[in-house]
Amino acid sequence: MMCGSCSNENAFKNIFIAYQRRLRGDIDFTLEEKISCLMNQPPGCPKLSILSFLNGFHGRTLGSLSTTHSKYIHKIDVPSFDWPVAHFPQYKYPLDEHERENSDEDNKCLEEVEDLVVQYEKKGAPVAGIIVEPIQSEGGDNEASNYFFQGLQKIAKKYNAYFLIDEVQTGGGPTGKFWCHEYFNLETPPDVVTFSKKMQLGGYFHSSEMTPRQPFRVFNTWMGDPGKLIVLESIIRIIKEQKLLDNVVTTGHRLKSGLLQLENEFPHLINSTRGRGTFLAINATNEKLRDDILKRLKAKGVQSGGCGAQTIRLRPALIFQEHHADIFLDIFRQVLKQS
Amino acid sequence: MMCGSCSNENAFKNIFIAYQRRLRGDIDFTLEEKISCLMNQPPGCPKLSILSFLNGFHGRTLGSLSTTHSKYIHKIDVPSFDWPVAHFPQYKYPLDEHERENSDEDNKCLEEVEDLVVQYEKKGAPVAGIIVEPIQSEGGDNEASNYFFQGLQKIAKKYNAYFLIDEVQTGGGPTGKFWCHEYFNLETPPDVVTFSKKMQLGGYFHSSEMTPRQPFRVFNTWMGDPGKLIVLESIIRIIKEQKLLDNVVTTGHRLKSGLLQLENEFPHLINSTRGRGTFLAINATNEKLRDDILKRLKAKGVQSGGCGAQTIRLRPALIFQEHHADIFLDIFRQVLKQS
Repeated sequence: MMCGSCSNENAFKNIFIAYQRRLRGDIDFTLEEKISCLMNQPPGCPKLSILSFLNGFHGRTLGSLSTTHSKYIHKIDVPSFDWPVAHFPQYKYPLDEHERENSDEDNKCLEEVEDLVVQYEKKGAPVAGIIVEPIQSEGGDNEASNYFFQGLQKIAKKYNAYFLIDEVQTGGGPTGKFWCHEYFNLETPPDVVTFSKKMQLGGYFHSSEMTPRQPFRVFNTWMGDPGKLIVLESIIRIIKEQKLLDNVVTTGHRLKSGLLQLENEFPHLINSTRGRGTFLAINATNEKLRDDILKRLKAKGVQSGGCGAQTIRLRPALIFQEHHADIFLDIFRQVLKQS
Repeated sequence: MMCGSCSNENAFKNIFIAYQRRLRGDIDFTLEEKISCLMNQPPGCPKLSILSFLNGFHGRTLGSLSTTHSKYIHKIDVPSFDWPVAHFPQYKYPLDEHERENSDEDNKCLEEVEDLVVQYEKKGAPVAGIIVEPIQSEGGDNEASNYFFQGLQKIAKKYNAYFLIDEVQTGGGPTGKFWCHEYFNLETPPDVVTFSKKMQLGGYFHSSEMTPRQPFRVFNTWMGDPGKLIVLESIIRIIKEQKLLDNVVTTGHRLKSGLLQLENEFPHLINSTRGRGTFLAINATNEKLRDDILKRLKAKGVQSGGCGAQTIRLRPALIFQEHHADIFLDIFRQVLKQS
């Protein structure tokens, strides 16, 4: 695998293969399966689905695009698998002032997921897997509670679906853990974790139960650039030697506190500070203001980015330290004062 | 794009985008399209299809896998788009002794393609594109006549489908032309040509009419390894300087003549020599014999490969010369004598 999109595509295939093996048992394929699959038809190509979330982003090839739902321009005019799409929690901020509403939001979203799983089973396209980002990145840096992710895993287990956490954006350290889902106190590890970007090359971990019994079922003759593994080894060594995850936690705390303080100073301009480690975001009160802030930050030498409709996202490198955070917060304050 | 699979996936997207624009005209998307596509539903995600061929291979991600039909192990258990699959011509050899039968085979296959296009239009999943390899490689090194490819292009034009030639295996010189389809005397260039492998990185050419009018519709944030372009530039420079395509033609002629002579010497063992340039193949009379020949060639220092059910395929480098062909033919004769 190379990019995040390929990683998810291959993870889906692995999920479908494991799902069918659980149904079939360890017996050979039927002749009907072998023949029908060559013509794109069931039973060889079964009608299975992957459940995903509105505002999620998992790639742009035709399989992964069927689980991407952040912007219409990514999807319009392109045929899609008819796979179920659930709402991802939309929290009110600050979190500690909206505990009840946000908890209701979690439960509403979890109920919808379970309803969709039941509905797609009935319509003959059972949900073989659930894919979710630990923080919806492209879709607006939307975070969800540990309770929500634990609930998702419970539903996946209840209906024999595999639970796939897409760490293409969050993996590699920016949240303060190597994998963001380590925060979630899941009962068991997720069945699949996909990665790319900071990991230099794409791929996925999966539970050993999911290993296909036959060779060459998840395969690509184009082996990408295996030399990137050497680069990755060095990166991981440096992360450990320099305790960069600890640095991310410390810096992230300083950065988040500073953003919350700016929210209090400029409540008419910004709100909803959120995220983990230095993987942080804040909303502007409207899209025009957001774009304006990004431009002014850039003019003062700060490269930041937008996501979702009105969000500013911060993605500093793992070596970003507290005094860098202070420089950024100072410039951000200047920009807000002039807005 | 990186691998052949990604190249085809993105080419499909480009085809769907262009197909819908021809229907819609240069007007904005409707609100219904924008909203429905986020939920994987028409009209935003229209039911369009790509027609492909039995024994074709175009990749293993979920979109390109729906056009791959060479071995069941690639496809079984994986959901597929319900896209049409036509038969690719299966010729009788030697070609000059079976002109009438092979021409009938061409016409039968072309008629089936046209029937499928009409049928899928009727069932509400119009064929937006036809994808074909110039020589079906993974599926058994099956070649087809210029007449067949010209006929395919005519059908594509008649039904407003785009004509995509997948040169992932054949591109880059091994057939004696840089692109194999240069042999076909097509009325106009194909709408899309995809490539990867020898080209160091994946991608595609398309007609200027197909350029999406909006940015970021065919896009990937993971930019692969653009440094490979520098490698590719050097490769192309060497191909030109050393006239390697001429070398492939000369060597290919010597190699093919030699294979035909071996066919005559060992008609009970091998037959059906075919291919262009040094991109050549020959059948063994059964699969066991084929595997046996491959093993014995290897024991004598010749690395060759199998494809299809009983085919030996030759894929020498572009610098393979006539005297190398003679060495190979000599070893192949020794192996056949012992079979």
